[in-house]
Order: sequence, then C-alpha cells, then structure tokens
Amino acid sequence: MKIEGKEYRTIWYENNVVKIIDQTKLPHQFIIKDLKTVKDAINAIKTMEVRGAPLIGATAAYGLVLAIIENNDQSFLKKSAENLINARPTAINLKWAVDRMINKLSDVNSDKILEIALNQAKEICEEDVKFCENIGLNGLKIIEEIYNKKKDTVNILTHCNAGWLATINWGTATSPIYHAHKKGIPVHVWTDETRPRNQGANLTSYELNEENISNTIIADNTGGILMQRGQVDMCIVGTDRTLANGDVCNKIGTYLKALAAKDNNIPFYVALPSSTIDWGYKKL
Amino acid sequence: MKIEGKEYRTIWYENNVVKIIDQTKLPHQFIIKDLKTVKDAINAIKTMEVRGAPLIGATAAYGLVLAIIENNDQSFLKKSAENLINARPTAINLKWAVDRMINKLSDVNSDKILEIALNQAKEICEEDVKFCENIGLNGLKIIEEIYNKKKDTVNILTHCNAGWLATINWGTATSPIYHAHKKGIPVHVWTDETRPRNQGANLTSYELNEENISNTIIADNTGGILMQRGQVDMCIVGTDRTLANGDVCNKIGTYLKALAAKDNNIPFYVALPSSTIDWGYKKL
Repeated sequence: MKIEGKEYRTIWYENNVVKIIDQTKLPHQFIIKDLKTVKDAINAIKTMEVRGAPLIGATAAYGLVLAIIENNDQSFLKKSAENLINARPTAINLKWAVDRMINKLSDVNSDKILEIALNQAKEICEEDVKFCENIGLNGLKIIEEIYNKKKDTVNILTHCNAGWLATINWGTATSPIYHAHKKGIPVHVWTDETRPRNQGANLTSYELNEENISNTIIADNTGGILMQRGQVDMCIVGTDRTLANGDVCNKIGTYLKALAAKDNNIPFYVALPSSTIDWGYKKL
Repeated sequence: MKIEGKEYRTIWYENNVVKIIDQTKLPHQFIIKDLKTVKDAINAIKTMEVRGAPLIGATAAYGLVLAIIENNDQSFLKKSAENLINARPTAINLKWAVDRMINKLSDVNSDKILEIALNQAKEICEEDVKFCENIGLNGLKIIEEIYNKKKDTVNILTHCNAGWLATINWGTATSPIYHAHKKGIPVHVWTDETRPRNQGANLTSYELNEENISNTIIADNTGGILMQRGQVDMCIVGTDRTLANGDVCNKIGTYLKALAAKDNNIPFYVALPSSTIDWGYKKL
C-alpha cells in the first residue's frame, strides 16, 4: 500500500539485506531499516519494529535467510530458529513460519540452502499477500451489501492495527476497507486509539490517511455510544490467535466492542488467514 | 479526606475568599487557589479547576456569595446566576444549586443578603457531605457482604472520578470504598484510566493513594478481561445525570463496563445523591 504516494510492502529483500519499516517511529517518522543478521531480525521482533502476526512470521522466515548468509551450518540454523521463536512466544505465526522454513531446510545441501531459504521466505510473503487479498475480496461483499442498502457512507469501527503494516500488504481487517475504497464505495473508519500502546492512533490511522481513506481516531471508550447512536454499520478486527471452536484472542479491549456490537445488533467480523487458527486448542 | 496526611475538603470559605484545589494540576501539583470574584468562580468551572457535579454546584453557590460581596444588587446577582449556569450547561447540579440560592435571596434585604447567601452555600456543602456519607454507609454493606462471603480482598472497578474530589468530601462511588477501608475491610480498586481526559489516572488514583488504599490504574480496555477472569467483585461509578426511569448518563465508556459486568454476572452499582436525578425526563 501507499506511503507518501509510493507503493511499499512491510518487508522485502535486496542484496543480502532484509528491509523493514521501523514501526516504532510511525506516524512521526518513516524510516526504512536494514536487517543484516539473524540477531537484527530477533531484535526487530522483540522491540516491535515489526509487529502483527503475519509480519512477525515473515520477519522470522527472512531472519533464517540472514542466519544462512552469516553461517551456512545446520547447527547455527537450528539455534537461530530457536532464538527466533523465543523472541515473541505469543505469536503463533512466528513458530509456524520458522517450522515451515526448518522443514524445508533441514536436509538440504549447503550449496543450495540459501536459494531454497530465500524462495521459501518469499513464498511465505506472497502467500500472505494472497490471503489478505482474498480476505479483502470476501469482506468487500459485506461492505458492498451495507452500502447498497444504506446508499450512504459505510461507517466501520476497528480496534488496534490489523492493517497492512501488520501483514505484508493489504492487512486483514483493513483489506476489505481498502478494496471497498478502491471500488469507489464511500467508507469512514472509527479508529480506536487502542491503549496502552496506541496502535490504532499511531498505525491504523496513519495507513488509512496515506491511502486517503476518511477516518477518525476515537478514545477506546467511545465505540459504545457511537453504536448506540447508529453511527457504526459494522465492526471488523484482526486476531492474534483463533481457536478451533471460533474463540478469538485479540488486542485487549476487543471483547468490550464485541459486547457493544451485540447489544446494538451491529455485525462484528474477525478477519484472519488460516495460519492464525490454533487447531490444537478447542476451549477457551 | 486526606492529602499529604492532612484533612481537606474540595471547597471552603475564609475571609471573603473561596478556596479550591486546582484539579487541573493534580496529581503533579497540589495547589490551593483563591476565588475572589464571581468571574473567578465561573472561570474555575469552565476550565475544570473544579469538576464533578456536586462540587460544580457548590462552586456556583459560593460564586453567588462572591457576587454579593462584589456588588450588593439584585440585578448583578441575577446576571451572575445566569452566567454561572452557562459556564457548564450539562451539569444539572449547577442549575439546581443556583436556583436554590436565588430562591433564598431574591426577596432579601441588602443588609442581610450576604449572611443568608453564605449560610445557604454552606448548607449546600454540608448536605452534600451528608449525602456522600450516607452513600458510603449504604455501599459499605454491599462491600461487607462480598467480603464476608469471599474472606479475601474485595476488588472494585471504577470509571472516571466520582471520588471526593468530585464532591465536597467522601465522593459518591468512592465513599463506600473509603468507609470499607476505614472499617478494616481489605479492598483493591481497578482504576480505569478514563480517556480522553484521564480523570481516573490523574484524580481517582491520586486520592486513593493519599488515603493509602491499594489501587491499580488500568487502560480502559482492560476491565473486560479482568471481569472474565474473576478479578472484579463489583463495579461502582458515579453519574452526571440519572433519569427518572433509572437510565444513567455518565462519563463515556461507562456503558462498555456495564455490558461486561452483565456478561460476567458482576454487580454494577451507580452511586448518586438525589440531586443528580432528572425527574423531568423519563426516556433515554
């Protein structure tokens, strides 16, 4: 998506270096940062320079590419994989991406390993972009339906940042919004500030602004009364982890908005790729 | 209640001057401010140096005392009353206190008017202290009951500041908590930060700390999960305005906590004096 009018992804590879957008500096500074070693990748995850489940997974995958460039040895690779997983133990995509890389790389000859690792990391990214695009196309139908009934701006409430900055491109919760906007449907987003770390105010509003999508930052307390007054047509959020029974774990405060949506008969959607489903755990 | 170990009220009268605590400076600075004219009183209400329905009412009553000291004339008094009411149109106590003062003062001889005004302003304050004390004694029973069942610290969630700083003494929502603490019942308060103006973080936590009551400032988003995890035994809040049918208007975000309390079968109380009931308006 666009920043200052130019198309970006959140992570890419150029001449043995992984490039990321330092998200701790947004919205005040737009800084592209180089990751040159697996330690850099671990650090970027730990300090939240990259955040969001899919982007953390992609950074870990590229982290293993950097590990191979540093030291073309299986034991270093295994140790790096372990360190990456420990960088943020709650992120299910992180372990998923690392496991997928290691499965591909564990029996590979050292002269081929870098090429295979790089292809695999790129594949993880491309897949995620495709997932997010499909989320957008599916969600677009929902927004379109509301618009066709209402014939006026569709007001969408979101919490935290499940935007393109949390993924590789498009985002999860924001992808339907971007697709609707590109199709010319008038949308307006209520962006929860999202205390205590303000990802909504700092990131979601920033990326919507850069795509010229009308949005208003609101205190987390505000969503309830907006719903009571009919000023919210739908809610859509991302998810850190979704259990096989449908229970959703997401940024603190999501539950309060879900309760308010239910109390006011407003549809509440969770946008996710299948990689964030935890099939092994059924009951919250 | 105590600040730095010394007993205070939020407003008092000394040698033709009204003294208030400048609440815009809390919790960082404890400053006692002099109000010498009705304009000072209007300004204190407008700039939120005083806030909270009962304290706004008391400030307006004392504002009329200051008006009489300035200009002992019925037309100046009427004009001052009007200006005071317009200082914060949403505060029902403000109009209530001004009307009560004017009723007492409109047919009074100019040589008696200051004494009567002063007595009436004091009476409004003393009544409020009594109201708040009674709220505390009633609420104490509820906390005691929970404690007798649980035999462990009672966890109480509150939103915004309905503490003694919003009243003359004791507070509304906090009065049961202060009474329980004085009786030796172990209590712990979850203090909602209360965005966007942070009255919970700045005022409620401050006054609880000064009374040595255990409390934790939480992001407004946090209450829901605390309730889901059984870490909240009861909620108690104040009210700006309560309709005759029981509908409560209070600081934004109160509704979200009420929904979460209902979803988790946690009792939710609103503490109020009868002066905040709007008998004329029945349906929200």
